[in-house]
Order: sequence, then structure tokens, then C-alpha cells
Amino acid sequence: MSAQPRQIHLNAFLMHVGHHEAAWRHPATNPENDSVDHYVGLAQLAERGKLDSIFLADGLALWNNVRYNFSGRFEPLTLLSALAMATSRIGLIATVSTTYNEPFHVARKFASVDHLSRGRAGWNIVTSSQEGEARNFSQEKHLDHHSRYQRAAEFLDVTRALWDSWQDDALVYDRNSGVYAETDLIRPVNHTGQHFSVAGPLNVPRSPQGHPLLVQAGSSEDGREFAARYAEAVFTAQQTLADGQAFYADVKNRAGHHGRSPEEIKILPGIAPILGGTEAEAKRREAELNDLIVPEYGLSQLSKMVGIDLFDHPLDGPLPADLPTVDDINGNKSRFSLVIELARRERLTIRQLLTRLAAGRGHRVFTGTPEQVADQLELWFTSGAADGFNVMPPYLPGALTDFVDQVVPILQQRGLFRTEYEGRTLREHYGLARPSARPVAGTAVRAGVPR
Amino acid sequence: MSAQPRQIHLNAFLMHVGHHEAAWRHPATNPENDSVDHYVGLAQLAERGKLDSIFLADGLALWNNVRYNFSGRFEPLTLLSALAMATSRIGLIATVSTTYNEPFHVARKFASVDHLSRGRAGWNIVTSSQEGEARNFSQEKHLDHHSRYQRAAEFLDVTRALWDSWQDDALVYDRNSGVYAETDLIRPVNHTGQHFSVAGPLNVPRSPQGHPLLVQAGSSEDGREFAARYAEAVFTAQQTLADGQAFYADVKNRAGHHGRSPEEIKILPGIAPILGGTEAEAKRREAELNDLIVPEYGLSQLSKMVGIDLFDHPLDGPLPADLPTVDDINGNKSRFSLVIELARRERLTIRQLLTRLAAGRGHRVFTGTPEQVADQLELWFTSGAADGFNVMPPYLPGALTDFVDQVVPILQQRGLFRTEYEGRTLREHYGLARPSARPVAGTAVRAGVPR
Repeated sequence: MSAQPRQIHLNAFLMHVGHHEAAWRHPATNPENDSVDHYVGLAQLAERGKLDSIFLADGLALWNNVRYNFSGRFEPLTLLSALAMATSRIGLIATVSTTYNEPFHVARKFASVDHLSRGRAGWNIVTSSQEGEARNFSQEKHLDHHSRYQRAAEFLDVTRALWDSWQDDALVYDRNSGVYAETDLIRPVNHTGQHFSVAGPLNVPRSPQGHPLLVQAGSSEDGREFAARYAEAVFTAQQTLADGQAFYADVKNRAGHHGRSPEEIKILPGIAPILGGTEAEAKRREAELNDLIVPEYGLSQLSKMVGIDLFDHPLDGPLPADLPTVDDINGNKSRFSLVIELARRERLTIRQLLTRLAAGRGHRVFTGTPEQVADQLELWFTSGAADGFNVMPPYLPGALTDFVDQVVPILQQRGLFRTEYEGRTLREHYGLARPSARPVAGTAVRAGVPR
Repeated sequence: MSAQPRQIHLNAFLMHVGHHEAAWRHPATNPENDSVDHYVGLAQLAERGKLDSIFLADGLALWNNVRYNFSGRFEPLTLLSALAMATSRIGLIATVSTTYNEPFHVARKFASVDHLSRGRAGWNIVTSSQEGEARNFSQEKHLDHHSRYQRAAEFLDVTRALWDSWQDDALVYDRNSGVYAETDLIRPVNHTGQHFSVAGPLNVPRSPQGHPLLVQAGSSEDGREFAARYAEAVFTAQQTLADGQAFYADVKNRAGHHGRSPEEIKILPGIAPILGGTEAEAKRREAELNDLIVPEYGLSQLSKMVGIDLFDHPLDGPLPADLPTVDDINGNKSRFSLVIELARRERLTIRQLLTRLAAGRGHRVFTGTPEQVADQLELWFTSGAADGFNVMPPYLPGALTDFVDQVVPILQQRGLFRTEYEGRTLREHYGLARPSARPVAGTAVRAGVPR
């Protein structure tokens, strides 16, 4: 048995006409085409590039300033189900929040998508971070950050138990005896906890992957602990190689404290690649996009990130000195820290900061030739900062087409990326094991199965 | 303008290998094929027959005795989204409960499916009727019947307001000015009620149909009132023409009390057609299916319907005299009444009753030649008992193939059913208007739209 060389994993983070907030104003995009066909094209493009997966983000409120940008009309799990029909190999990851959902619904929908897609479903587990989301779900106040993660942990305990409530071979289809399912192999979960009481069993048989791939994207203290315990892939925003290395080492180390090996959790920093035939051309493209920025839009986003209203501060001055501290932030704590640090480290004015955040909302922007971008990816990959990357094309489909046609082949030539899909399931693409359902207990287990 | 002759509407109610509880044991079915391809085949078959819609039922617990039958592995909204990609004209209706869901999620998912399918989404609105569902959603006790309908009514008020929170022309995509959406045309809903507080607006633009087609399937007193107020199509179980006529007149009359015209609400009784080249052949097929019944399965279903455990009663005796009354039933009240009435009217033993319920769970079984079945449909349609039918094939795909190839052409020859789709949307198939979003109020409406 020859050792498989370690390879880069690539996820395409799809966002309507791209991650750059002004992409929709650029002539290379067509925001009016917000149909499913647009997303089918993107998913098939990513599949042509042999990427591990595509990913759809989500939020439970109209939370950006829709006057200047809007991220699309689809709810992720319904769109993902449609995309399952238009693709055959690529993994399909969607964000679903644990804050304003019920574990039974979420476990069931992901099991269903895993069946539909024959084992290609992944769940990006988030806690809802915006006040506006609470108000759409009969809550006056948003749950605080720590409680959200406590709820998320119990949510995962329940969903994993539900996915394991059917053994793989429970369905027997015995026409002669009239026995459809071996009910000894279907068990209630009988969970009673602080946030949830769920009897189970699930009403969906165990799916091809057993559990969907579990992805996580919060990098706060609570977020890292959660990732170390539950996540199999982590999306993260890191601005410098040193920060990326520190994060990588920390999360792998924490996973060890939970009895997991470092290979069981893949770290995927976000990158926003802007490519050009020459470095100058790439920089020109970046400038073209940045010239289309509407400051009001970025200001509303940045105000939320840093927790104060920046509209009354001069655009060409620095961030105000009297900012909140990370303890005051009840939204995305790690993004708050990253933005403040970036502004201070590089002594950016608010206007400059808006420009730095426009393409990737805090994720690293790699602007350059395909060789230069590939070099950066290889550097992060071989320097202990990444197992792969969450690719966030600033404009779509163009920037993804360029990445697939120009960067992927270089990675393939260097032996760093697959030239064909070898696995069938999303777990196989990421080199992750299929979890087995826990063995049936010796006691009677049919109590929860209706007669 | 020539008057359009009134035409029959047909919905195909899809259920894995068929509605007959023993269908999976019959050599004409293949229960092991529980993949999305099976459902794609059924949806395309119904579309070939020019049917108005397909429909998927749902429940939020493993509620039938899975040892002897199981209705399939998919969650309806994810499956429906996949089927949207494999069809182009037929309507797509899924059940979602108002009892253990949140209006924001449900409004959003149906808007998303309506976008995905280009205007073909329909929502069968139910209240959850089983104790086991409560226990999957952190509730000790199931909500009582009347409270469920109160919650359902408020749920509908909120979802309709959310669908109307975007005007149709809110997205303007003005690249020059940088204005993506006209935020004066996107308004919060600011609902505060007994069960829900929802700020809105929805984070999905208004969908092709404005609202999905609203379908309802409960025939109790509360159910009829709910239908009269909200439903545009009603699925109902009626055993006799007289009962069908009475129900039809009652619901249309009630709709009038809510200021609606009789044409705005379509009544679709369920029928389970078993076809044969001769009446004898059809009856032989029915007997073949009934011979495969496992009494334990039917007994567990019937016990739930009538609200007492029937396992200790002799199969060849009548239903016990000391049954609950309809007031005692907290599940499906109308099905309870129908079953008791059927057993008493025809003096059926429990075993005979099980056989009568096996194919359609209380829906009318039409066994005969294509001509005979078409005659029955025409009779119900022209006698004030139906605007169309909810077709429940006892085994699949065979019984749907027979219906499409043998019954539909007869209805077409009689001028009772379309020979081609004329409309594009599900509402157009049913001859129902697209609701307009309510006009924007004069007051400032941007309060709920983030800056």
C-alpha cells in the first residue's frame, strides 16, 4: 500500500454574482440572472474543476443593506436539493443555524439531501449572529454568544443521535413474511436536555454518509472549542500566514483534547482570488471592482462588524478609539477581532478598510497571476496553515472560471490536487471516515417505534 | 371571448410504491428502489398525463408501524426541489405542518421553491395530528385540536404578510446609481400575535406566483372553517356521492361567508383507482393486493384512527360499541367520523374494515374499467361533489401509468380535461388568480430594512 500524498481540498463558496460587494455593478456579471440556472452553471463549473464541494451561506433575516447589494433569492437547502440533480460528484454544503431551528427538522432535511445526492451532503453549522434574526422568530432579544454555543452543542448531540437511530441494515423488504423493516435496528433517542427533548427515532433511514459532513465557521474561543469537538471541516478567515498557522495549530491541538486525530478535522481558510495574465492586470481588475464600491453599503456592514455606528465618522480618518472590546460583541466575535487588528496593523483609514473588506469581508484576497496564487496556496498548505481553501470568487462566474481553468491545473501539475474524483461521497473527497451507527443496546429498544 | 368550459383538475398524490398498505409486497412494485430516480419517474409520468400537480404528504415522526410498511426516505421540500429540476410544467405541492414550524422558515422555503420551479409551488397546510410529533419537538403534550387551528390561522396570516413584504418590482439593479433594490418597496411585517412575533421582511424577493398555491386537507369543523378562509384547493376523503356533495356545498358556502367566490376554492376528493381491462380483472387486482395485507399493520393504523387499541378485539367481530366520540379525538377528527360511519353503514367486521381501508386509508376506491372510473369521475364532477380529484394510485408506478394512459384520454375525449398545458404556473393550471402584494402604506416603511 503506497502512501497517499497529502492533497489540497477546495471548496467553492458560491454567492450569487460573487463575494465582492460591488460585483453586481461590474460588466462581467449579470445580477438579473438570479435563476436556478445560474447556480447550476456555477456548480457544474466547480465540478468540472474536480473541487471537493460547493457551499451556500445563509442568514435568517434580511440583514445586509439590500438597497446596495443582495445575495440572492434562494433558501440553501431547497437550492442544494435542486443542485444535487444537476451534478453527480461534487459535495453540497449548506449553512443551517442551530439557534432558530429544531434538531429533528435539521437532522431530517440533511439526511434527505444526503439520500437525494447519494452521499454528498454537508452541513455548515452556525449560530445566528444578528439581532434581526431573533425578531423573525418570536424572540425579543438575541441569545447571547455563549448560550448560542451551548445550544449548538446540544443540537449536535441530538442530530447525531437521530442520524444513528436507524442502523444501516434496518430495511429488509421481506415480501414473504411481510416484514419491511427490522424494528430492533430502529431505536428512539430519548434525549432530554437543557434546550431540547427529542424522543426520535428519525423518520428517515440512515443516509449514505451516515452523517452529513459537519462543517463549522466560527473562530472565537467558543467557536474553536465547538469545532474541536464536532467539526470535520472548518471555514476560517485569516489575514496573515502567521495567524493562519496559529489558528491551525490551535484547532488541531484542541481536537486532540477531545480524543480526535489532527487528520479528522480539515482547516480551510477563505481566499478571494483575483486573477490576471500579469500581476498588473490582476491589480487592475481588483481596482475596477473597488471603484464600484458604494461606501454606505460597506459602512453598514462594517458598523455591524465593529458594533458601533460608523456613519458619523470621517471616511478618511481612522476607526474611532472608543470601540467596543471583543467581550461586548454578541455577533461574530472572531471577525470583529480580525477587522480591528487589520485596521490597526496597517494603520488604515475607514475608507481604506472598506476597500480591504469589499472583496472578501475579511477573508484574504489573493490578487495576482495564476502562478502567484498557486504559490500562495501551496505555501499556506505546506506551512501548517491550511488543509485546503474555501475559494470565494469575487465575481461570478468569471473569477471561478479563471480559478478552475488557470489555478487548478497548476495545483494538479504540482501533484497537490486530484485530476479525477476518486471517491463517490463528500466524506470520501475530504478523506474522512463514515461514522458507524452505535451498536444496538442489549435492552429492549422498540419502545419508541410505533406498533 | 368564449366561455371556457369547466374542466376537471387532477393531482397525483405520490407515495413511494403506492397508497395500498401492502403494495410493497406485490410483484408489480419495487420497494428497494427508494431513490430520487423513482420519484423523478413518477413526476414525469404525471406530467406526461398533463396533470395539474403532484403532491407529497408528510409527518414529523415515525408514526406508522415501520415493521410492516414504510412510506419512503425523503423530506418533502427537499424532494420537491429536486423534482422541480426534472419537470417543467407540473405543479409541485408539499405538506408542511404549522404546528411544529416557524412561519419565517416556511414562508421562505416555499418562496424559494416557487423561484426554483418558476411558479409551480403549492403548500398543503396541515396541523400535526400525532402525539409522537410533539415528543420530537420538546413538547410533553400534543397541542389540542382547536388550538392547533388557531395557531395555523395565525401562521397563515404571518406567512402571507411575509410573501407580500416585497413588492414585485422591488429589485431594480441600477448599476449606474449603485441601487440594487428600491427599499421603499420592501416592508417589515411587524406581526405581534398570540403565537408569533415576526418582524420581517422576508429575505426572499416575491416569487413568481406571489403566494404558493394554498392547499388544505382537514375536513373537521375547524378544518372546514380554516379551508373556507385560506385554502384554494382542498383534499378531502368522501366515501359516497351524497357525502361528497354535502361537503362541497358546505365548504363553498363557508367560503362565501369570508367574501370569497365559489370558484376561488377547488374541492378535490381523494380516489384510489384500481383499473383492469374488464371489471373482473380490476377486481382480481384489488383482491391480489388485499390478500397481501398484514392485519397487524392495519390494526395499528385503525387503532389510531378510532382512538382505542383494537388488538384485543376479534378480527371477525364488529368495532366495539364503546368507542370514543369525535369530541374525544385529538388527531384527525374527520377521518375518525368517516371510518366509524363506513363500518356502521355497511355493518363491517374489523377485518372487512381493514380491507376497505387498505388501499386508500378512507379515501374512495374506484375499481373498474377505465370507462367505469371515468364515468364515476364525471358523475362526481358534474353532480356538485368535486372540481377535480386527488388521485391516489394504490401501487406505483403501475396504477398511475394505467390512469394516465387509460383514464386521462377518456376524460380528454369528453372535453373534461386539458390535452396540453395552457398555463405556466400551478395557479394557472387550477385557474386561480395571482395575489397582488398589498399596496405600500403611506407611512415610512423602511424601518425594518437594515441600513
